[in-house]
Amino acid sequence: MKTLEEMGREAKKAAGDLALASSEEKDRGLAAIAAALREQAGRILEANRRDLANAVQSGMSKAMQDRLALDETRIEEIAKGVEAVIALPDPVGQVDKGTVRPNGLSITRVRVPLGVVGIIYEARPNVTVDAAALCVKSGNACILRGGKEAIGTNLALAEVMGRALEKTGLPAGAVRLVEDTGRESAQEMMRANGLIDVLIPRGGAGLIRAVVEQSTVPVIQTGVGNCHVYVDSPCDLEMGVRIIENAKCSRPSVCNAAETLLVHRDVAKKFLPMAKAALDRYGVRLRGCPETRRILGECIAPASEEDYAAEFNDYILAVRVVDSIGEAIEHIRRYSTGHSEAIVTSDYGHSRLFTRQVDAAAVYVNASTRFTDGGQFGLGAEMGISTQKLHARGPLGLLEMTTTKYIVLGSGQIR
Amino acid sequence: MKTLEEMGREAKKAAGDLALASSEEKDRGLAAIAAALREQAGRILEANRRDLANAVQSGMSKAMQDRLALDETRIEEIAKGVEAVIALPDPVGQVDKGTVRPNGLSITRVRVPLGVVGIIYEARPNVTVDAAALCVKSGNACILRGGKEAIGTNLALAEVMGRALEKTGLPAGAVRLVEDTGRESAQEMMRANGLIDVLIPRGGAGLIRAVVEQSTVPVIQTGVGNCHVYVDSPCDLEMGVRIIENAKCSRPSVCNAAETLLVHRDVAKKFLPMAKAALDRYGVRLRGCPETRRILGECIAPASEEDYAAEFNDYILAVRVVDSIGEAIEHIRRYSTGHSEAIVTSDYGHSRLFTRQVDAAAVYVNASTRFTDGGQFGLGAEMGISTQKLHARGPLGLLEMTTTKYIVLGSGQIR
Repeated sequence: MKTLEEMGREAKKAAGDLALASSEEKDRGLAAIAAALREQAGRILEANRRDLANAVQSGMSKAMQDRLALDETRIEEIAKGVEAVIALPDPVGQVDKGTVRPNGLSITRVRVPLGVVGIIYEARPNVTVDAAALCVKSGNACILRGGKEAIGTNLALAEVMGRALEKTGLPAGAVRLVEDTGRESAQEMMRANGLIDVLIPRGGAGLIRAVVEQSTVPVIQTGVGNCHVYVDSPCDLEMGVRIIENAKCSRPSVCNAAETLLVHRDVAKKFLPMAKAALDRYGVRLRGCPETRRILGECIAPASEEDYAAEFNDYILAVRVVDSIGEAIEHIRRYSTGHSEAIVTSDYGHSRLFTRQVDAAAVYVNASTRFTDGGQFGLGAEMGISTQKLHARGPLGLLEMTTTKYIVLGSGQIR
Repeated sequence: MKTLEEMGREAKKAAGDLALASSEEKDRGLAAIAAALREQAGRILEANRRDLANAVQSGMSKAMQDRLALDETRIEEIAKGVEAVIALPDPVGQVDKGTVRPNGLSITRVRVPLGVVGIIYEARPNVTVDAAALCVKSGNACILRGGKEAIGTNLALAEVMGRALEKTGLPAGAVRLVEDTGRESAQEMMRANGLIDVLIPRGGAGLIRAVVEQSTVPVIQTGVGNCHVYVDSPCDLEMGVRIIENAKCSRPSVCNAAETLLVHRDVAKKFLPMAKAALDRYGVRLRGCPETRRILGECIAPASEEDYAAEFNDYILAVRVVDSIGEAIEHIRRYSTGHSEAIVTSDYGHSRLFTRQVDAAAVYVNASTRFTDGGQFGLGAEMGISTQKLHARGPLGLLEMTTTKYIVLGSGQIR
């Protein structure tokens, strides 16, 4: 078993080679990965079956088992995902800006890979391949550390990918998996300054908080979404129903799903019963403020402070009636995780106020929060949704997996 | 004395207002600051004299005293610096990119302030004003924590600035100074997630390391520069002399000054005596590898591993003869802090190899490393030189003091 130090050194070296690889070379490596995943599906599925058997024995929930399980179809989807990354433009070498200074110095700022990217994630084995493919395409080496439940599957995937890269002349060290899935191995990654350039946690709020708090390696914080939909007055109430229904119910487990509905007092009496009827069809349980319960009835559970702060990731929705757009913005400012926030309004001034005053990665007028996604935004695949303000905010596409370098060409200039 | 919690809340509120202020409003505030600095120079200088008296008593070095001391001329320079910031374009509201998606959603990515910026710095009181001016212009509130030696001066400056802002209708809470200069106050800032959005340490390597290691608030790492000049073969040797002389001697205390000279074996015998003659005029002490000492004589001190890793910030230069450009790049990869690295060469292939393989904020061909500077790069004033890969790399101009927000305008789209 390799130490993190050894993997880090290999990854560093591989990152040096990968940074100089042409787009064609990287795409060839990715094509080899896609092909190898298909060819060696049997081996991967066998490892996955063992992981699943262990998971069942240790009493893993059905939902978690479903995240862990692979089959031929899912492997085909994963391979297709790699091919989708091939189709994206290579960000490395893109010129951000350039100028010639009065003294004749030519200064250009070009996109270069970040170097070695560490990714700490949980049970889904598809992340192993998605993350590796995005890293290879953007010229980064990666050190992956998945959850212990998927370790057999992940090892098989990492080995298949490493060999495929090697066959096309790219360094196998560009994709490395940490075999030790204990708590210490994650903590070691968080302290690996000099070996790992950037750490990206992908998973639940607990994991992300732990990495943000403990890491001395720079972190990109992703994916915690306590998203709001505010139904303003005046607005198209039917549009409001469609949007909250979509934002809550189209996929409640994801970070861009809505967790709280805010409704202006002037439309609440009419709107809330309409919304409830739509949400009832999905079995959404509402937790309401006193005014909501006055309108919808005492059968609605009361909403607590914790409910307003919660990312339910489930068919649960907190509901609050507000007196004004100002109160709605104040509520969002207090509870938002800065992911995605939406207003439904037909007032021009309100739309402007909301988009200017709400501080989030994505602010919506008259659309569902569910669109905050690399594919929906036209970036192609993504590494997650950044909810921090440094480096990148919103979907992390290939460009966000790079940094810049100033290249200054002179003819003997001194200062 | 206000607690950090109180200041943080005020700053957060002020940041909300400042984010919505127009460029004109912010420029008016900055003009009021420049005017107030001039008008109240007497009061500021009086506070500064007290700080200096205490410093002399506690045995502060002459060089440090010089950094701390203000006079009418320096205050005028500081006020002019604020006016220079007024002249820069406002980054807030700039549209990075925009698109209309096939479903009709209009997505634009606009520049918005970071929010509350914490700045931890050492003895120079001019940083108090420079940093505040850059923050106000970029729509950020700031919480400043300077060194204890300058606390009286800094308090006077912060009060003058806060009142000036208030007079023009901007929130005084936008510029706050931490009065407690103990170690605990810095550590409290490093843990102030939710109150401070970004922390920027400005000062020596020790301060920066401490902040990077201890902060849970996102950090922009600045200013540690172990910069190299590599004199290749073939090259214009006289240009090489001019460049190393400038990179080492024009201002040895700054982060873009050169600390190590690398010389190709084929030109070393001719080049090293030329370089020594030029550097001798400044009293530069050389520390050489065995080959350097063979050429220049045993009077040159031997260079140790520590010398290669050191940021001398003084008239000291490590010198090493290398066999190839590959060995030079290897040396730089090992010891570089990723700030500024230069090659002097007349070989096209070597220039390309060096700029591609060396991983630093700024890579130079045939120019002095001393140009890595916001002003020299055409960005105007700067908040420091970022040596990290996340967010921004190289000089931190006004644009780098902002983040982005996606604004998505729809007409009822759901997913």
